[in-house]
Amino acid sequence: MAVYTEITDDELFAFVDGYAIGRVLSCKGIAEGVENSNYLLKTETGSFILTLYEKRVSVDDLPFFLGLMTHLAKKNVPCPTPIINNAGNTLGTLCGRPAAIISFLDGLWPKRPTAEHCAGLGEAMANMHLCGADFEIRRENNLSVASWRPLLESCGPRADEVRPGLAGLLAGELDALEKGWPGPGDLPSGVIHADLFPDNVFFQGKELSGLIDYYFACNDCFAYDLAICLNAWCFEPEGSFNITKARRMLTAYRRVRDFSQAELAALPLLARGSAMRFLLTRLYDWLNTPKDALVTPKDPLEYLEKLRFHQGTSGPGAYGLE
Amino acid sequence: MAVYTEITDDELFAFVDGYAIGRVLSCKGIAEGVENSNYLLKTETGSFILTLYEKRVSVDDLPFFLGLMTHLAKKNVPCPTPIINNAGNTLGTLCGRPAAIISFLDGLWPKRPTAEHCAGLGEAMANMHLCGADFEIRRENNLSVASWRPLLESCGPRADEVRPGLAGLLAGELDALEKGWPGPGDLPSGVIHADLFPDNVFFQGKELSGLIDYYFACNDCFAYDLAICLNAWCFEPEGSFNITKARRMLTAYRRVRDFSQAELAALPLLARGSAMRFLLTRLYDWLNTPKDALVTPKDPLEYLEKLRFHQGTSGPGAYGLE
Repeated sequence: MAVYTEITDDELFAFVDGYAIGRVLSCKGIAEGVENSNYLLKTETGSFILTLYEKRVSVDDLPFFLGLMTHLAKKNVPCPTPIINNAGNTLGTLCGRPAAIISFLDGLWPKRPTAEHCAGLGEAMANMHLCGADFEIRRENNLSVASWRPLLESCGPRADEVRPGLAGLLAGELDALEKGWPGPGDLPSGVIHADLFPDNVFFQGKELSGLIDYYFACNDCFAYDLAICLNAWCFEPEGSFNITKARRMLTAYRRVRDFSQAELAALPLLARGSAMRFLLTRLYDWLNTPKDALVTPKDPLEYLEKLRFHQGTSGPGAYGLE
Repeated sequence: MAVYTEITDDELFAFVDGYAIGRVLSCKGIAEGVENSNYLLKTETGSFILTLYEKRVSVDDLPFFLGLMTHLAKKNVPCPTPIINNAGNTLGTLCGRPAAIISFLDGLWPKRPTAEHCAGLGEAMANMHLCGADFEIRRENNLSVASWRPLLESCGPRADEVRPGLAGLLAGELDALEKGWPGPGDLPSGVIHADLFPDNVFFQGKELSGLIDYYFACNDCFAYDLAICLNAWCFEPEGSFNITKARRMLTAYRRVRDFSQAELAALPLLARGSAMRFLLTRLYDWLNTPKDALVTPKDPLEYLEKLRFHQGTSGPGAYGLE
């Protein structure tokens, strides 16, 4: 939960005046998202999300993120649409920061994802992967395998403060991941979301109504997006893996975009890599978040349990596929 | 900023079904308020605030808080109105917690209060004080002078971790406050808000459009509410006291409810007491907030500077009154 930048009224009015969306009625910081400051903006014409991009988001990446949302929304992916300002741009400046106004999507994110939700997610993700195919800007995945060793090294021996032996355990796993990780072109690739956690997926009743928060989106292999979702959606709160949810997600996905045998075979390793990625960024935040920070660091050890599960699987059968 | 309780969709739908406000469209945690979980709830009929009362609010006090809002709203104080559910109540239960739905007020709180804002505040506060006169429930101020010594003792010598010598300095000030503090009946009293910080006061343009968050409201002397606002509104960010803002606030107030010479004379001591109250609760939170808490503790030392200012005044002339 995060609202980092406090906007004065005059700055807000001047910014919103640059759009044809009417007068500001209210503007409230939202307790969701950790990378940016998000506000629920009510104007005479409706509800919007106002986002100020904070330091962790690179300005150079914003044309990719905003362009991707515009691209996907045009193809009817249920995705927030950046609003175009009077100067014809989707990106502006507010309080000295890059800022954008995007459409507000109705819906609720599932606090307790069911197998139905997982099926909805699989279908929508596959559709998003297909619709992103002709998006023209590229962005490398800067949180993929090449980033993990520097991340681990920056945590250093302090990793063992979180759990004794953690640093060594992760170093060993990294060796295996670096050796086995697929190279470019090894697997079907395109634009992936790379952060499709339940709080980024809205439903209205049983219908998926929104895929939001594209600020980790990048070009990478599609199956890695699936691996991230296996970790984010298919473990129960107490730590067990729900194979039914995994099967429903993968089956719904492949009805829209079938995956190759190579993709299927890569899933266990990709799921280990995804667990490593979130474990490392959480570990880094855990060790480096000051007491007075606005963001509550997430428990890195949740992902250690997930990593261990995937280390113990013998193949994609563990995810419910025959 | 705080959202403590995570509501599942089924619980939310069942709760909102108990009101005649239509189907839920969205529900987002708001990054404002520290005592409760607040959500911006959009339904087919409009926008509302859904509040779950967390542990720091006593259930026994809720009839006072909700009743007061209902009472003031009926008298056209710009105040959120608790919505009555199908059973005829304003208080319900959600996720095992007391919960209420209240009306959503448009407006923005002033991030940089001006003298105009202070005048608007003074007028609205006086009106609120008058309108609360015939409210029938009573609630003692449990954060007044009697609470300060136990609070200081619970911080103990750890106060000096925040600033060397702080514990002794506060103990001395407490002696003076306990000796001089007005007794019941010494000053005109009634329902006060007791937490009218800028983020609890909304404006639309120059018009004050809302006084929100009544969860510290209580029976106490009216001048104490003014003293709280002198501290919360009239110091500049760099620490200087803006006498123009104070004069505008007090002058606008007394046009609606004139204050006695005794109230005026008590202001410096009440302002010291108000500084002590917020210093102590912030100090307590500062020393007792775990690293992974959802709330960012506020700097107690801001109120040490304010306390020192009031200690150095020779009378209410320091606040711009002749």
